Amino acid sequence: MQRLQKATQQNTRQHNRELVLKVIQANQHTSRAEIARFTQLTRTTVSEVVAGLMIEGLVEEIGPGSSQGGKPSIRLQMAADSRYLVGVNLSQEKFSGALVNLRGELKETVELPVIDTGSSQALSQLCQLIDRLLANTRRPVVGIGVGAPGLINTQEGVVVHAVNLDWRSFPLARLLKERYHLPVSIMNDSQATAIGEYVYGKHAVTGNLVVVNVNQGIGAGIIIQGRLFQGDGGYAGEIGHIGVPGNRRACRCGRTGCLETIAGVQAVLQSMQERSPGPPWSLDSLVECAAGADPIAQAVVAEAGQALGVALSHLAGALNIQSIILTGGLVRFGQPWLAAVQQGLHQSTLPRLAADTRISFGALDLRACILGASAHLLLENYGLLFLKPET
Amino acid sequence: MQRLQKATQQNTRQHNRELVLKVIQANQHTSRAEIARFTQLTRTTVSEVVAGLMIEGLVEEIGPGSSQGGKPSIRLQMAADSRYLVGVNLSQEKFSGALVNLRGELKETVELPVIDTGSSQALSQLCQLIDRLLANTRRPVVGIGVGAPGLINTQEGVVVHAVNLDWRSFPLARLLKERYHLPVSIMNDSQATAIGEYVYGKHAVTGNLVVVNVNQGIGAGIIIQGRLFQGDGGYAGEIGHIGVPGNRRACRCGRTGCLETIAGVQAVLQSMQERSPGPPWSLDSLVECAAGADPIAQAVVAEAGQALGVALSHLAGALNIQSIILTGGLVRFGQPWLAAVQQGLHQSTLPRLAADTRISFGALDLRACILGASAHLLLENYGLLFLKPET
Repeated sequence: MQRLQKATQQNTRQHNRELVLKVIQANQHTSRAEIARFTQLTRTTVSEVVAGLMIEGLVEEIGPGSSQGGKPSIRLQMAADSRYLVGVNLSQEKFSGALVNLRGELKETVELPVIDTGSSQALSQLCQLIDRLLANTRRPVVGIGVGAPGLINTQEGVVVHAVNLDWRSFPLARLLKERYHLPVSIMNDSQATAIGEYVYGKHAVTGNLVVVNVNQGIGAGIIIQGRLFQGDGGYAGEIGHIGVPGNRRACRCGRTGCLETIAGVQAVLQSMQERSPGPPWSLDSLVECAAGADPIAQAVVAEAGQALGVALSHLAGALNIQSIILTGGLVRFGQPWLAAVQQGLHQSTLPRLAADTRISFGALDLRACILGASAHLLLENYGLLFLKPET
Repeated sequence: MQRLQKATQQNTRQHNRELVLKVIQANQHTSRAEIARFTQLTRTTVSEVVAGLMIEGLVEEIGPGSSQGGKPSIRLQMAADSRYLVGVNLSQEKFSGALVNLRGELKETVELPVIDTGSSQALSQLCQLIDRLLANTRRPVVGIGVGAPGLINTQEGVVVHAVNLDWRSFPLARLLKERYHLPVSIMNDSQATAIGEYVYGKHAVTGNLVVVNVNQGIGAGIIIQGRLFQGDGGYAGEIGHIGVPGNRRACRCGRTGCLETIAGVQAVLQSMQERSPGPPWSLDSLVECAAGADPIAQAVVAEAGQALGVALSHLAGALNIQSIILTGGLVRFGQPWLAAVQQGLHQSTLPRLAADTRISFGALDLRACILGASAHLLLENYGLLFLKPET
């Protein structure tokens, strides 16, 4: 009972806090009295919660509203610029990061090339990036959110394995906390991207969403009922190593036929190289070639999209999640690639399951990961539930 | 704001109700004062909620507890037998149903053979079953919960397509409501089975669970954070038509290579018939033969299990849900089949994702579907959240 009691009190406080924040967020110029009426919480509880939020800098008073007879009440709003968040994206050849305000606006952006892929080099580059961001603000900083490629244990703050950074069982959160004395949240880059697109991408999505991030590796972020679903171990969305029927290519994981060996960025470059040998193909040159209606390039792109569609039929189909957003390097192939993904999906699932599925492109490119990593800090530190900003 | 206001009030009431029920459930002999202390709700709110629960028959007073100085407070408990639920399983050759109490105990069970598969025949058999169950109780009945095979739209109460019952766009919930004037909840049989196993199966699972029901068709029920996840259209868990690499068999859905053509009950019988022709194999004879160490039968079973494991690697692997429970006809092949499923799973996913996955058998056979369908009524009608009974 002790445990239940604690959990219940915790739940109640968290619940009240979320309720109050939601009302303030949904109605920027509300008052304590209105909040009490809307939430059915007592005036005292509302005042306490609001006081806490003001101390934390999440909410601010903006003077009295219009009087309806009695004393005019003081209006409240979210204090968007009272605190900043640091969001970082480690998934590309360059590291990028930004100072983000409480409404998801990027206030300052820094990019650094990755000089070396050694594990300590990568950490030192990351710290340099964060140092530069922090040097530029005198606002209180809520914390540091990092989106990194590979298998991440968010709960323990450990990068379990990130090939491109040469990190294995790397206690990144602890190291950053020790250095910056700030809350740190680390998560898989595709998961962070999913949060970013869900919260700030202005997609007509409520509740459930699958965001698939297609670079050299392929990962998904799964939003279920407005929250990131990470699974029991934190690895939900790891779809890069699903077996694709008919695919026999060797994968860096040691098996054959994995999705990323046919549908990822390296995979399409390799396919093109095999069919059209010569100087090495780059993503730039292949995009140009496909746009120029080269039949070989188009076939390579279609094959990659088709395989991805089959894999998505397993994930999104089995979950019956009807909104899918695609992000990452392959997005550059545009509509022909998207059409192939759709075709793969429709061919490999029951027509009724595929019928209402909408696949579209992400809206935020690399910023999605930065924004998602920062939004996750709001959830972890304020119980603030991925509030979509008013549009 | 109007909508938010309504939603917020609704949420608060629902939340308070769930809190109070949880406390009563977790501590059978609690009092109103204790509940107020634990939940931080006001005494008035607690008294109101408890009064409502008593009127509905969910909670009862059991006399004064021990005094701690002042007036002894009245103790409360869940009233397990104050109301019954009707749970029905339509997934087999026979229809089965039961009266279930609020703790998930089966009070009365009825089975009826299905005489014909015509759609009106099936309905009339179902009504006969429900009539017989209702004739046997003078307790108030909360409602009727039905688990049916096929694609079900739970929200609208429509059987979208159930092959074995010959129902298409069949408004089952409306028809039963009109006849019985009771709340009706219909859901996919695998989803109902998942709820049943999760709530009443005494598995060491909290939060996330995938239950895979393997009969002629193959379906899964996905429990996420203690709730059934149905997806946007209600079809979450439809994995029977996932394509299996290397499988070329024609499926009743019109495509080839679907999971159920290699891993379902008909599939193993067909495989055995092809390799060991003669009088038609039945599940009984094949189970016996496999248990007798017949190498052909064992190979057929292993092949089916292996294919299922691959499909599970897509679903459970991509969701990173580590608890998988298997139910349905193929469970009769026991450990050798389970080992093949495990092998398929491990071969087709990253070692780290498969490492912590536990696959086990269901504990409740056909009762799981009945119990799950009835438990869902508690959620829909009382906001009662799949409470696991105290053990």
